[in-house]
Amino acid sequence: MIHYKAIGKIIGVLLVLLGILMLPSIAFSVYYGSNDLMALVYSAIISALSGGLMFSSFAKQDENIRKREGYLIVSLSWIFMSIFGMIPYLFSGSIPYWPDAVFETISGLTTTGATILEDIESVPVGILTWRSMTQWIGGLGIIVLTVAIFPLLGIGGIELFVAESPGPTSDKLHPRIRETAKRLWFVYVGLTLVLMVLYKLAGMSVFDAVNHALTTMATGGFSTKNASMAHFDIPAIQYIAIVFMFLAGTNFTIIYFGLKGKFRQVWASDEFRTYLFVVIFIVVVLTVPIYFLTCDPMEKAFRDALFQVVSLITTTGFVTADYLSYHDSLVIIFFMLLFLGACAGSTSGGIKFVRHLAFVKNSYLEFKRIVHPRAVVPLKINGDRVTGKVITHIMNFLLIYLAIFVFGTIVMSLAGYDLITSFGSVATSLGNVGPAIGLVGPMDNFAFFSPFAKLFLCFLMLLGRLELFTILVLFTPYFWRAN
Amino acid sequence: MIHYKAIGKIIGVLLVLLGILMLPSIAFSVYYGSNDLMALVYSAIISALSGGLMFSSFAKQDENIRKREGYLIVSLSWIFMSIFGMIPYLFSGSIPYWPDAVFETISGLTTTGATILEDIESVPVGILTWRSMTQWIGGLGIIVLTVAIFPLLGIGGIELFVAESPGPTSDKLHPRIRETAKRLWFVYVGLTLVLMVLYKLAGMSVFDAVNHALTTMATGGFSTKNASMAHFDIPAIQYIAIVFMFLAGTNFTIIYFGLKGKFRQVWASDEFRTYLFVVIFIVVVLTVPIYFLTCDPMEKAFRDALFQVVSLITTTGFVTADYLSYHDSLVIIFFMLLFLGACAGSTSGGIKFVRHLAFVKNSYLEFKRIVHPRAVVPLKINGDRVTGKVITHIMNFLLIYLAIFVFGTIVMSLAGYDLITSFGSVATSLGNVGPAIGLVGPMDNFAFFSPFAKLFLCFLMLLGRLELFTILVLFTPYFWRAN
Repeated sequence: MIHYKAIGKIIGVLLVLLGILMLPSIAFSVYYGSNDLMALVYSAIISALSGGLMFSSFAKQDENIRKREGYLIVSLSWIFMSIFGMIPYLFSGSIPYWPDAVFETISGLTTTGATILEDIESVPVGILTWRSMTQWIGGLGIIVLTVAIFPLLGIGGIELFVAESPGPTSDKLHPRIRETAKRLWFVYVGLTLVLMVLYKLAGMSVFDAVNHALTTMATGGFSTKNASMAHFDIPAIQYIAIVFMFLAGTNFTIIYFGLKGKFRQVWASDEFRTYLFVVIFIVVVLTVPIYFLTCDPMEKAFRDALFQVVSLITTTGFVTADYLSYHDSLVIIFFMLLFLGACAGSTSGGIKFVRHLAFVKNSYLEFKRIVHPRAVVPLKINGDRVTGKVITHIMNFLLIYLAIFVFGTIVMSLAGYDLITSFGSVATSLGNVGPAIGLVGPMDNFAFFSPFAKLFLCFLMLLGRLELFTILVLFTPYFWRAN
Repeated sequence: MIHYKAIGKIIGVLLVLLGILMLPSIAFSVYYGSNDLMALVYSAIISALSGGLMFSSFAKQDENIRKREGYLIVSLSWIFMSIFGMIPYLFSGSIPYWPDAVFETISGLTTTGATILEDIESVPVGILTWRSMTQWIGGLGIIVLTVAIFPLLGIGGIELFVAESPGPTSDKLHPRIRETAKRLWFVYVGLTLVLMVLYKLAGMSVFDAVNHALTTMATGGFSTKNASMAHFDIPAIQYIAIVFMFLAGTNFTIIYFGLKGKFRQVWASDEFRTYLFVVIFIVVVLTVPIYFLTCDPMEKAFRDALFQVVSLITTTGFVTADYLSYHDSLVIIFFMLLFLGACAGSTSGGIKFVRHLAFVKNSYLEFKRIVHPRAVVPLKINGDRVTGKVITHIMNFLLIYLAIFVFGTIVMSLAGYDLITSFGSVATSLGNVGPAIGLVGPMDNFAFFSPFAKLFLCFLMLLGRLELFTILVLFTPYFWRAN
């Protein structure tokens, strides 16, 4: 028996929150006298009312939430939020066709940032703010999930590294989930506000500063401008974006330590160090060819390389340069960046460094195991021994991720798209990045896809965002048979 | 201390054998009065003499061969055989340029079947026979390796499944390695001879029958014709080829049981059943679109689908149809076939079904483990429990395989080839298949690659053929530091 009423209660609360979070867009709409006001007001009321009704009808039920309900809550939350989150697009007429509205909403809530809008700047301000807000909500949601929910559900295999980060949480996270979660929201909200101010000071309008701050911290990548961040041709703005994209891709526990001045604990994180070094390495590798290929000044070449690399690795997806225009041989490198993902416990999507690290370290140890078959050769990350069960789980995650990528590419290919576009659209959706290669490069949008392709890519975004297992487990008999 | 003398002794023996195995090409050269006779005679003498010298200078050494020497022997065997195996190409002037000769020889010995020859039919018969013989030698070598050497070295993680095949060998293979190896050579040699007769009866010349029998049983794919098997437009020949490619991709222990009439043991092999079902499934899926796209009769469409699928899955690489000409959306499916490989303990290269099976089964069990975290959920293959260590090893193998594929694609891409050609050439080299996609499709050859690219692809062929770890372990400090 699944306790559907307990699930309904929680989703009710989330929908009320969704309605409340439409208020900032209403504020902008009022301030600019934009014509999307009533659409937003109605949407907010519908969402809040439906949520309130759901909550109150189930409020008296005292059903416990168990693990099984957990998986359903996570998947259904994203689905219900997507359904109610797309209402403003439909009501305002900004995105009148429902598969497009679904795509834009799920791309938002999963912090992917792929868009079907062909002329973003013609969309009214309130709707644009709501669009940015969906990403910020998604980012907030994922922080809660990775810190509080996934570890309980045993999803993703990275829960150990998130929970066992160095410092005050190193004993056990579970007893103090609430406190930790609060702390991380504080980091998330705080950095978002700081970023708004910085963007404003560097030269953005208030509207742009708010919107881009929301989507930067969520590693989302929705912009209010057709040219994305390339629109703001002010180095300061772009460097601020780079720093905050990087921060948004860092484990929030690590940021918390950093803010408290505990730099030794920051440095003790294998994942953070790897993240930092890989970014530096790839930027160095790319700056030189970009410099020679574009004839731009060195600073511009460096900034473009840095911006694009940080944006893709953190799965944000802002762009300041058309990385496909450089040279054919660099395409594969930008393509590979779609598979990295930043740190576990951040808002970034994708595979994430802790998994890559576990794979690379374990591969190296396999050789030791071959040469010394009788020796016990444990894998250690952040100084802690990783159990064989977790190693298997992580490797399996990586292989399932790649299998879904292959399966997705076959589907997109059969749906009629060329191989490169299929590779790109699937990789960027699954990794929650945004731009890709082929026909969905940094200067393109996703409008031309068929409704089937759009909905399929939405499914991939959800799969990637919810660490595969959360959704896939619902398709196994084990889930429905369990007591 | 590595016992180099013990290694030299064994390689000496192999070189003598290599010289002896040049005799069939000499026979054909004499029979047809071909102008490559002296080149072959000199090559045979050089190889046999060098081998004899190496053997006799180390023969009195009584050094033991340990595991460490094992890794080196495997890698060095292929390298030495490549060096001496290319002499006929150079001496005869058929392939005068050394990187081309290296490529053709390694493509032969690894049973890949990619060729740099632009006009195969202009090459003299003796050289062509030697070219086919290199594949047959490689096939023989790999049977010995997977049955006798890899299990001792702990390479590949599939040794358990090869060793623990059902039947007389199920207790333990090691004590009777010699007997088992003999038995499998018997199957290999026997089937090759039967196939020669069948090809001849179906309409090939003796020369073509011998050559194609050698390269079919090795899952090699070198042909004496520019059009490969499409040259023989006789359904009987193509169906014979299909049956024997399929057999060559089957675990030879399973074939042995089949020949003895123990069909229950054949059917008990999870890997064999998966192999059979996947082939049938993909052929069914492809026959219909090929039928409609080509307007060929149904039988021809079916035969073309079957031939191409079996040829690619078994990593043989013969072609009877240009699978890239059907439709863009089917390219990805043919591309994926390059990653399958047939059964462990066969002559086929690539990943092989037992590993895919282990991954798919374990993925499914991961969900059970998530839902029931306290339950013990073992993975079983062929009814036997697979240890966690082996599961980890297999998953790591798969990920390293894919990582090398990605790394290889980046290298080829930076070397100046388009993304699809890079994907294709790397996948087909690593999987020891032969034809691929892009500029190296079924109707193309590898002549246009730069010397660097050719040598790099050779390295990938060796890596793939020797199950990655055999070669890669030589690049780790663990190997050189071990006592």
